[in-house]
Amino acid sequence: MRNYFCKKPLWEVSRTLAGVAQGRIPADTVIRGGKIINVCTAEILEGLDIAIAEGRIALVGDASACIGEHTKVIDAAGRYIAPGFLDGHIHIESSMLSVAEYAKAVIPHGTTGIYPDPHEICNVLGMDGVKCMIEESKHTPLKCMFVMPSCVPAVPGFEDTGSFIGPNEVAEAMKLNEIVGLGEMMNFPGILYCGDHAQDIVGETLKADKIVTGHYSLPETGAGLNAYIASGIRCCHESTRAEDALEKMRRGMYAQLREGSAWHDLQEVSRAITEHKVDSRYACLISDDTHPHTLIANGHLDHILRRALEFGIDPVTAIQMVTINAAQCFQMDHDLGSIAPGKCADIVFLESLESMNVTKVLIDGDVVAENGQLTVEVKPYEYPEWATSSMHIRDEITAETFRVEAPVGAAEVTVRAIELIPAKVPDIERHVKLRVKNGLLESDVEQDVLKTFVFERHHETGKVGVGFTKGFGISKGAMASTVAHDAHNLLVVGTNDADMALAANTLIECGGGMVVVCDGEVLGCVPLPIAGLMNAKPVEEMSEIVSKLEQSWADIGCNMPSPFMTMALIPLACLPELRLTDRGLVDCTKFEFVPLIVEE
Amino acid sequence: MRNYFCKKPLWEVSRTLAGVAQGRIPADTVIRGGKIINVCTAEILEGLDIAIAEGRIALVGDASACIGEHTKVIDAAGRYIAPGFLDGHIHIESSMLSVAEYAKAVIPHGTTGIYPDPHEICNVLGMDGVKCMIEESKHTPLKCMFVMPSCVPAVPGFEDTGSFIGPNEVAEAMKLNEIVGLGEMMNFPGILYCGDHAQDIVGETLKADKIVTGHYSLPETGAGLNAYIASGIRCCHESTRAEDALEKMRRGMYAQLREGSAWHDLQEVSRAITEHKVDSRYACLISDDTHPHTLIANGHLDHILRRALEFGIDPVTAIQMVTINAAQCFQMDHDLGSIAPGKCADIVFLESLESMNVTKVLIDGDVVAENGQLTVEVKPYEYPEWATSSMHIRDEITAETFRVEAPVGAAEVTVRAIELIPAKVPDIERHVKLRVKNGLLESDVEQDVLKTFVFERHHETGKVGVGFTKGFGISKGAMASTVAHDAHNLLVVGTNDADMALAANTLIECGGGMVVVCDGEVLGCVPLPIAGLMNAKPVEEMSEIVSKLEQSWADIGCNMPSPFMTMALIPLACLPELRLTDRGLVDCTKFEFVPLIVEE
Repeated sequence: MRNYFCKKPLWEVSRTLAGVAQGRIPADTVIRGGKIINVCTAEILEGLDIAIAEGRIALVGDASACIGEHTKVIDAAGRYIAPGFLDGHIHIESSMLSVAEYAKAVIPHGTTGIYPDPHEICNVLGMDGVKCMIEESKHTPLKCMFVMPSCVPAVPGFEDTGSFIGPNEVAEAMKLNEIVGLGEMMNFPGILYCGDHAQDIVGETLKADKIVTGHYSLPETGAGLNAYIASGIRCCHESTRAEDALEKMRRGMYAQLREGSAWHDLQEVSRAITEHKVDSRYACLISDDTHPHTLIANGHLDHILRRALEFGIDPVTAIQMVTINAAQCFQMDHDLGSIAPGKCADIVFLESLESMNVTKVLIDGDVVAENGQLTVEVKPYEYPEWATSSMHIRDEITAETFRVEAPVGAAEVTVRAIELIPAKVPDIERHVKLRVKNGLLESDVEQDVLKTFVFERHHETGKVGVGFTKGFGISKGAMASTVAHDAHNLLVVGTNDADMALAANTLIECGGGMVVVCDGEVLGCVPLPIAGLMNAKPVEEMSEIVSKLEQSWADIGCNMPSPFMTMALIPLACLPELRLTDRGLVDCTKFEFVPLIVEE
Repeated sequence: MRNYFCKKPLWEVSRTLAGVAQGRIPADTVIRGGKIINVCTAEILEGLDIAIAEGRIALVGDASACIGEHTKVIDAAGRYIAPGFLDGHIHIESSMLSVAEYAKAVIPHGTTGIYPDPHEICNVLGMDGVKCMIEESKHTPLKCMFVMPSCVPAVPGFEDTGSFIGPNEVAEAMKLNEIVGLGEMMNFPGILYCGDHAQDIVGETLKADKIVTGHYSLPETGAGLNAYIASGIRCCHESTRAEDALEKMRRGMYAQLREGSAWHDLQEVSRAITEHKVDSRYACLISDDTHPHTLIANGHLDHILRRALEFGIDPVTAIQMVTINAAQCFQMDHDLGSIAPGKCADIVFLESLESMNVTKVLIDGDVVAENGQLTVEVKPYEYPEWATSSMHIRDEITAETFRVEAPVGAAEVTVRAIELIPAKVPDIERHVKLRVKNGLLESDVEQDVLKTFVFERHHETGKVGVGFTKGFGISKGAMASTVAHDAHNLLVVGTNDADMALAANTLIECGGGMVVVCDGEVLGCVPLPIAGLMNAKPVEEMSEIVSKLEQSWADIGCNMPSPFMTMALIPLACLPELRLTDRGLVDCTKFEFVPLIVEE
């Protein structure tokens, strides 16, 4: 695939590179004395220099003749030199950071290219939002090779999103040079049962000669997996068992082994490589979703590499998984993924293969980070006003908004409650008896059952979904969030109506985010003004604000790990068993709306 | 790269494939019971079926549910099943066979796709000739994924060819779906010294997002090789030493290890893999030039696989080199090169991994060969009249044509003779004293020095190059050939003028070819009416005719192996030291014309 993510296309600079390689033109930069990790041959080679010009590698060999008066010579003695790391599947929005801040956070960890799927912003702001992220990415040296969200809305007919993506929208998006493929095709039922919508979205991508990325989360590697792959889907990050990853690779599908902030798949899935000793060219390492705290505390792909070593993967093999294998997955290996003549000079210095500590990073031949610090300016990008004012809720929200009337005359009713399982994706439909107070249904802290509301926030439709959630364990206060997958409507959960109204209004005021309130006071708030999903503050600051918010959760009694993550899945109607969208309660085993009150 | 060489594009059949995989639609064909060579993971897997529909693989797994009333079930018990073999660098013209006959010859040996470089016909007939071969290829099931000849003429200014290819012609050619890249860029000096012609030809290919294939024959792996690769050239088949191949792979260049009829590189270059134990994903096996006899006696890629095993390459690794590695080299691995869902059902049955004997071949799901025999009809293709009448020589040729006048009054002169080295590519400039007879210079059989003429045959320019050749060892008769690299003018060598005229006129009459005559009689003749290069007769017949011709050579006293091959290189002015084109003698160390007679 033609690469629009380098300083200059090769044919514009090939004469210069040939001249540099042969000592007729001085190199811009020469790296000397490092141990080169050759991902093409899986060797570590010493005694070779790297000569760079016009952002590309001109020579790997003896660069003595390439050094001129103005050549920058970098001494790499004692360092390992790897190609820049590539993350083949990642959602920037999960970090809550803007693209610029995300780039600043990951580049010092050796990441030089990512294949982001802007699925979340697309649900809120559609293609216009995606284009903002593309635009912002151009302000950073990070190569952001976007894939087009494929499943907006996630579950059509059961929720209201800010936009709709169909085959026509995908065909249009594929004309953009910045879009290299299709984002994770989560609608595997649509693919398996040959729905035109899903099949045509994939088809438009294939027609454009771009890459279709996948999401096949069934623990089934027979008929279904074959049908899914046969439909043209090239990679998948949803393996949670070693055999899933292995069977995918055996069928020519890139197995993107995941180690995200919340998804720790690698220990298990790495066995596909370590135990089966297969050719690992179809294996990659990816992060999917990473929180600001993980980026600060652990890093990005460098962290995942360390985990890979821990689980017994050979260091050179592991590095292939974040370089050449990823580049081959996206058919961009002619420009990316190896330290070789003609390739973009995206280069990472490592302290050692044991630590995988990144000491220096070059992108397109420029040193962009050193010792954990970005060394270049990133020109700020201003999101347009419509992108930072995405709270379009029709009706004023007050305590009264949260009144849930019981059937006339009832003293007790049975409601369908969504029971959460801490740090797990599925939930359980639980039937709970609630006593009626003054004709109303209220949160019942003793039973750990809380009123839960979802307000449509994209088109001022006034739609509100009402339900109950069980399992947060809080004894007071309320929480709200606009990170509420995948439609990202305004989700409010609480013990009392006044706090719920405060939580909701706090987020309406700050343009979206996550908040915890108690007794009329805001305990913690993470403002996410960009689409209600992201904030342009630096990762350190965001990590701190998020930590404070987590403390606020604890203060009102919740001991779940990352409770906001679990909360954010309440509306995700493609997951089992019971979910609440702005249109109401959805039985996700049958894809039917169900009433709040169980008729007995 | 989008693939136009399959029955139907994936997006047109993905619904059917998904339906077949899940047992909702019966497969066209199911292969059961074989041992599948999984080139993605480098494993041999048993107990898996392959379900095929619409020419593509729908499932690799349990296909019980895919078998319907009309499903063809192929029992593969005891067989190994490999993806169809791909030859990444090959000149069909070298076989002297038409595309159809070439396809018929190689398909039964497991070849399902080739990347032909129609360099020879392009020199004679230009793009129109290339298009004829493309058209003919469509009559065969063989996937002929053409690359565009890059160096026509081979040495501009020193010879007359039938056509000229520059950057504009390449840019035009890249618009054709049947052309997937650029043919071997032999003009490495042009690349290294950044000549606009060579660099732009490569640039136009890269702009079109197609693959540039290489030809870097210098025993130099430093500055020059780096400059060559940095210019965007992706693969090279010219390694003759293991270290050449190794250094290419280390620089992200596909090393196409060659085993042709005349070039036996594999024994040496395979050490790059066997001794260095590197990741072999950047290694391929290719044939380059194969004669009809080799195809009959040895086979094609199956033969090269056998050679690879002989030299210690693991069978699965070797099979990767003619399947997935080749497909990845051309960035067509999404459609070709593995037995995996969605891929073209190009499949080879092998008797054993030791013998590599091919027992059955499928292309696009159809059985096309069994037990060495093609099982499908190939509709004949008629070359247009202009393509089969390419002998455009201005002047009538008679015995008098071959008179070489000595300087007036000289009794003896010293001439520059081209001394051949049997079965080697270079020649030597040798200065030979010739006695003048009746004011003329004649062939001198005692010194083994023969008159040699090259007649321009493309544009009736009347140009004739005159020289002497040493080393054929014949004592009588004459030979002529229109296979005379790369301009393919009419080359005549002989002991006497009458036989030389007969040889020349025999070829003019039959539209080109190769001939041996003696004492006014044609001893052996291989007519090559298609562009003076190819014949539409079957390989068996051609092999026989060529054998007879070789016998004729022996009959007049030549004991060289394949003397026609050596003869064909006499005009190839890109090789050292002294060559003869239709424009005269060329000193190929200095790229200067030199006179026949050495001034002393």
